[in-house]
Amino acid sequence: MEELLDRAGELLEKIRKERPLVHNITNIVAANSCANILLSVGALPVMTYDKREIGDIVAKSQAVVLNSGTLTPRKLDAMIYAGKAANRESVPVVLDPVGAGSSTARSKAIQRMLRQVDISVIRGNFSEISFLGGGSSLIRGVEAVGKPLDPLELIKDISIKFSTTVCISGETDYISCGKNTYVISNGHPLMARVTGTGCMLSTLVGAFTSVTYDYDIAAAAAALLFGISGQLAGEKARGPGSFQAELFDTIYSLTPRDIVEKARLRKES
Amino acid sequence: MEELLDRAGELLEKIRKERPLVHNITNIVAANSCANILLSVGALPVMTYDKREIGDIVAKSQAVVLNSGTLTPRKLDAMIYAGKAANRESVPVVLDPVGAGSSTARSKAIQRMLRQVDISVIRGNFSEISFLGGGSSLIRGVEAVGKPLDPLELIKDISIKFSTTVCISGETDYISCGKNTYVISNGHPLMARVTGTGCMLSTLVGAFTSVTYDYDIAAAAAALLFGISGQLAGEKARGPGSFQAELFDTIYSLTPRDIVEKARLRKES
Amino acid sequence: MEELLDRAGELLEKIRKERPLVHNITNIVAANSCANILLSVGALPVMTYDKREIGDIVAKSQAVVLNSGTLTPRKLDAMIYAGKAANRESVPVVLDPVGAGSSTARSKAIQRMLRQVDISVIRGNFSEISFLGGGSSLIRGVEAVGKPLDPLELIKDISIKFSTTVCISGETDYISCGKNTYVISNGHPLMARVTGTGCMLSTLVGAFTSVTYDYDIAAAAAALLFGISGQLAGEKARGPGSFQAELFDTIYSLTPRDIVEKARLRKES
Repeated sequence: MEELLDRAGELLEKIRKERPLVHNITNIVAANSCANILLSVGALPVMTYDKREIGDIVAKSQAVVLNSGTLTPRKLDAMIYAGKAANRESVPVVLDPVGAGSSTARSKAIQRMLRQVDISVIRGNFSEISFLGGGSSLIRGVEAVGKPLDPLELIKDISIKFSTTVCISGETDYISCGKNTYVISNGHPLMARVTGTGCMLSTLVGAFTSVTYDYDIAAAAAALLFGISGQLAGEKARGPGSFQAELFDTIYSLTPRDIVEKARLRKES
Repeated sequence: MEELLDRAGELLEKIRKERPLVHNITNIVAANSCANILLSVGALPVMTYDKREIGDIVAKSQAVVLNSGTLTPRKLDAMIYAGKAANRESVPVVLDPVGAGSSTARSKAIQRMLRQVDISVIRGNFSEISFLGGGSSLIRGVEAVGKPLDPLELIKDISIKFSTTVCISGETDYISCGKNTYVISNGHPLMARVTGTGCMLSTLVGAFTSVTYDYDIAAAAAALLFGISGQLAGEKARGPGSFQAELFDTIYSLTPRDIVEKARLRKES
Repeated sequence: MEELLDRAGELLEKIRKERPLVHNITNIVAANSCANILLSVGALPVMTYDKREIGDIVAKSQAVVLNSGTLTPRKLDAMIYAGKAANRESVPVVLDPVGAGSSTARSKAIQRMLRQVDISVIRGNFSEISFLGGGSSLIRGVEAVGKPLDPLELIKDISIKFSTTVCISGETDYISCGKNTYVISNGHPLMARVTGTGCMLSTLVGAFTSVTYDYDIAAAAAALLFGISGQLAGEKARGPGSFQAELFDTIYSLTPRDIVEKARLRKES
């Protein structure tokens, strides 16, 4: 655990120094927030949806983040195309299965991505990840309202099923690559009152996968950074509007020491 | 009038408790703001544009909001499809005719929606609503600059013509279902200096139609909440940037008592 | 130079009085910020992407801004169509060649726009403008990380090559129509930590081209306004989140006197 805390700070510093380019194919609601969270942490965003240029962009990118919000058939094709290009170039791919289980078409699209693209990290809320496991989805819209039943069991099942690191985020975050599970209980209720916080976390996971091959460490470090920043921002905010500004400000100035001091982390086997 | 003030507070509490899911098909400029205003008031947003999943999403939604900004032929089809699905499922439909009268194609698209979908509430600015009545449009772009000539007469005409509740928003808001008209003069000039405030109000109207069958009460309650929140936010803001944050903060924490105390409401027959 | 400072203030006042309508075809990341920057300065935004209505909208607009971010074949067609319509109507056209040089497809699309549309002002970062000159691009994604080699020579080459005013923005801004070059060194490092600041500047240039035929004065005035506002906002901000709110607040309330007092401007021949 202390290893993770130290690594998280090191990786944050590495992002700030190396400024990795993170290619996002995301939804129209959170596109602006995702670009801004990357700039706040020190990474550089690029967003392109046209297959004719995706090859060039992926080749220059250090990570690719695929987000299934406001999905269209053309965007699905672009995401699969970008994912395959990233696989060929050994660029890590993060999948945010927004809305998995909310409609048959969305669910099928996400399953198609999982079959055709080798995913480094899946980051979703409990309902979305639960759906990937074949469980009935508790989702209402794209916001999770269901209660986790047994997240520790679920996350292991999913990470083994898809041979990947999985991050379930919510009041408590769980990160596992099938062996141990990091459990993070930082965060703030206002995070659920701003749209796209899940999408932002997935994008941050992308930035962290670009600076280490230990994807479970990358995902856990991103969740720690985001949870701690959200918590500190929430303590200063007067509501969802001021919270958003505080969130970007906090991520921009968070130190490795803040991570060590504020982390609410445990490890479950 | 006192009845409306009490009902508005009750409906606000009901939204916060029941967390209705509101499905939006909206424009790329205001999508983020519309999702955030719903989360701020306590509702849950969902946005999907693909016909293949709209049926599933509408079936789970408590209201549907159709917004004609940044319109494309494909999005128009999706909106009509969603509207018809909502009609079949008895889910209320709010129409925001953004840009009605600003181009022939846009105007025709809006008229097609009005013919094919049974609309619960139309919410627009004076120019847009005036266009629906056959009047010459005073619109410049999507921002209203014309002066209302006789809004009380106009709103009755339109609500009778389309057998629906109509909300004309602007410096003064008018809400009518063809009989009496609620006139609200809350608000703040900075509301016209932030993009998408009209779209946000339409989305809030959607949230309120999900908790009462009295759509004129729903629209008036939403306009009251938004006008009072805008006014309080404007008094604290130093410009359009801080105004946006204050607006979300204020809506998040507004109480039924604030509504009763701050309302500038009259009823015209 | 004093002439420019006086003109900049006059043009700002003119925008606030006349409220020009600026038509934007832009990317999904910065669409909201571009609309808000126009409202903050006093102009009115309109965004439409459908060829069937672009003719009507351009005919009512006082400027058109074309931005190649998140480009698709359909949006490229719409931009060329809008640009040609603007040319016929003698409406000024600003081109923001986002991502020029970042992919072959993007570069070809931008070159096609430059061949088919008569552009009043090109506004890009050093890498993008350098690409237009045939130089190797230093871009990573859409964020410039390369160091300017000889911007004064580059800007003259490009403005003569395309017979247009050029604005290179970055830590230092350069504006030229092929003769003298205005050099502006206002601004703040936080401007590079918020997405879409370049897009916002292009949109502001559009607003200024609508109130003067001297497009080099228009572009320089917009860059001065934006640089000074960014600088003042940056001095108050605690990070990228509060910076955004401060930026809109500052542009909204900046006076002609602020421009004269804060400008860091020189002229190079």
